[in-house]
Amino acid sequence: MAATPPKKNSSSGKDTLKSVGEFGFIEKIRESLKTKNPSVVLGLGDDAAIFKPTKGHEMVFTTDMLVAGRHFDLKTITPWQLGAKTMAVNISDCAAMGAKPTVAVVSLGVPKDFHVADLEAFYDGMKSWGEQYGAQIVGGDTVGSDNFVVNIAMIGEVEAGHALKRSGAKAGDALFVTGTVGDSAAGLHHLQHPSDKGNETASLLVKRHLTPVPRFTVGRALSTKKWATSAIDISDGLSSEIHHLCEESGVGAEIHEEAIPLSTSLLHYCEENQLNPLDFALHGGEDYELLFTVPLTKISEAVRKLPGETGVACKSIGRMVPKVKGIILITRKGEKIPLKAKGFDHFAAKG
Amino acid sequence: MAATPPKKNSSSGKDTLKSVGEFGFIEKIRESLKTKNPSVVLGLGDDAAIFKPTKGHEMVFTTDMLVAGRHFDLKTITPWQLGAKTMAVNISDCAAMGAKPTVAVVSLGVPKDFHVADLEAFYDGMKSWGEQYGAQIVGGDTVGSDNFVVNIAMIGEVEAGHALKRSGAKAGDALFVTGTVGDSAAGLHHLQHPSDKGNETASLLVKRHLTPVPRFTVGRALSTKKWATSAIDISDGLSSEIHHLCEESGVGAEIHEEAIPLSTSLLHYCEENQLNPLDFALHGGEDYELLFTVPLTKISEAVRKLPGETGVACKSIGRMVPKVKGIILITRKGEKIPLKAKGFDHFAAKG
Repeated sequence: MAATPPKKNSSSGKDTLKSVGEFGFIEKIRESLKTKNPSVVLGLGDDAAIFKPTKGHEMVFTTDMLVAGRHFDLKTITPWQLGAKTMAVNISDCAAMGAKPTVAVVSLGVPKDFHVADLEAFYDGMKSWGEQYGAQIVGGDTVGSDNFVVNIAMIGEVEAGHALKRSGAKAGDALFVTGTVGDSAAGLHHLQHPSDKGNETASLLVKRHLTPVPRFTVGRALSTKKWATSAIDISDGLSSEIHHLCEESGVGAEIHEEAIPLSTSLLHYCEENQLNPLDFALHGGEDYELLFTVPLTKISEAVRKLPGETGVACKSIGRMVPKVKGIILITRKGEKIPLKAKGFDHFAAKG
Repeated sequence: MAATPPKKNSSSGKDTLKSVGEFGFIEKIRESLKTKNPSVVLGLGDDAAIFKPTKGHEMVFTTDMLVAGRHFDLKTITPWQLGAKTMAVNISDCAAMGAKPTVAVVSLGVPKDFHVADLEAFYDGMKSWGEQYGAQIVGGDTVGSDNFVVNIAMIGEVEAGHALKRSGAKAGDALFVTGTVGDSAAGLHHLQHPSDKGNETASLLVKRHLTPVPRFTVGRALSTKKWATSAIDISDGLSSEIHHLCEESGVGAEIHEEAIPLSTSLLHYCEENQLNPLDFALHGGEDYELLFTVPLTKISEAVRKLPGETGVACKSIGRMVPKVKGIILITRKGEKIPLKAKGFDHFAAKG
């Protein structure tokens, strides 16, 4: 789990970016981002950072942009949580490739009346995950913007040939998912409907929405042991990610509704508010769980060893089938219905 | 020079991001970004891209964020030019480290009524520099945003131990600058004061503002030949960058006003509009020229070979001195005055 936020920050609550300036802020954070990571040759403060790749490894490269009002609301997420979440989202992408994160650069577009203490809390949030999983912040760009926007680009390393792609699934492979799905979306639903019933169970869902945990240990176990033929992280929603995996691998899938792992918090919250947990689980998004395929020959070893080695529950929810069979959801009643991909599209007409 | 923009794009002028959706757009550009670069193991379409570092090389890692209304105005810059400029700014950072760019990820925050044809033009602009200097776009993130914002993160490679840092300058080294400085800021001034005199000369200045050329060949020559002890690119303004170089290297500098390279376009434009070219040259910014230091023992070789090997003029504008002597401008009249750093600060109280 991520470290908890510190009680106080070093800056006075009154300093704003306008009062300390861009370079003043960079000086402030530079000291706190000094690295002991031996692969980092040069950190913050030059035109670019310098790092040394590890022999025999390939690099993975990912980026995520979060925009205020679209991806988060500074009224409901603290700066520390936002920093931790932005970092977690990128680490999750590395984990989905089976890679360990190494270095990251952070771009911030910030309103000039933004408090420096809040920005420091944001950096502390990023560092909590960064330090836990080895992702060192080595550079960035801080610019003025009317609306808060953050972008992290992250490099990870994976043993050559071991990366987990979306395209490796084969018909016959079992499809697994880590943890439980739908919690984050239900947490968001509660934030947007604060008069809903079930505040106690909802607080766990809200926590999963605001402070997601990247499945680093699972991704690393899958790639080093070569247990998985493909993997993807669940950012847009389970149904949407299953479609991505099937499309890239050229296969179909059969998913068993009853096998989809739902938390008791989600079930309680949905029961109290007459909502369908399956909607959140299939189409909710932002779970940052891993979805991966395991060939028949490796299932027993993976199922036996994964929980102990990773501390994370992994559940089989179905299997990959030839492409012609399509992507099918088998309901609790045994009906076979096409599984529609209803993930989050930032530009969808309804949005 | 960057390729000129193509006459037309493949998309209908009517498509918007809202009508084609995020995934529709990604499908559209994915084909056009397919790579022949052998170091790219996996490009667009997975949780992260995969690339192989070259043996014996270190990686440089840089990022730049550009926000509409702060860094550019879509009324004066075309989408193609904006794409080319964003890429050029990042390649310039690699060049300032002596590195060759290899892979880049592009994050876009885009209003949903933005035209897909304009986004394609933006990508074509990025690709024009990317293809010229080997920076392959391998991934990114496209999200909704009320205001257009773009972030590029770029990886470059440099022979181990050859990177040009800001911290290597020694007292006694000569200080060089490429090309001419101040043109970009004067071009911006003209865009903001269209009633100024001198439209013809101004068009060259505007061109330098809208389509800067990264000094890739100079950066590579300096690092491979080990001619320079330090280097930085001029994004915030010559005076500001001289201060950065001096601070990081722990030295002072003496700059000769008369040696600062000014274009005839800048001189004409300033004469016609009663402006001081030195203000643009020292404090204007966005030149993306390189500022670098050369030790005495290497000056004659560097001066003799650089123009032929790089196609770029390089001029000595002064020398580094012990830190106690400060950072001094020697005027045309021979007066020694402190050189103030008045670069662009995104959060300065005036801004």
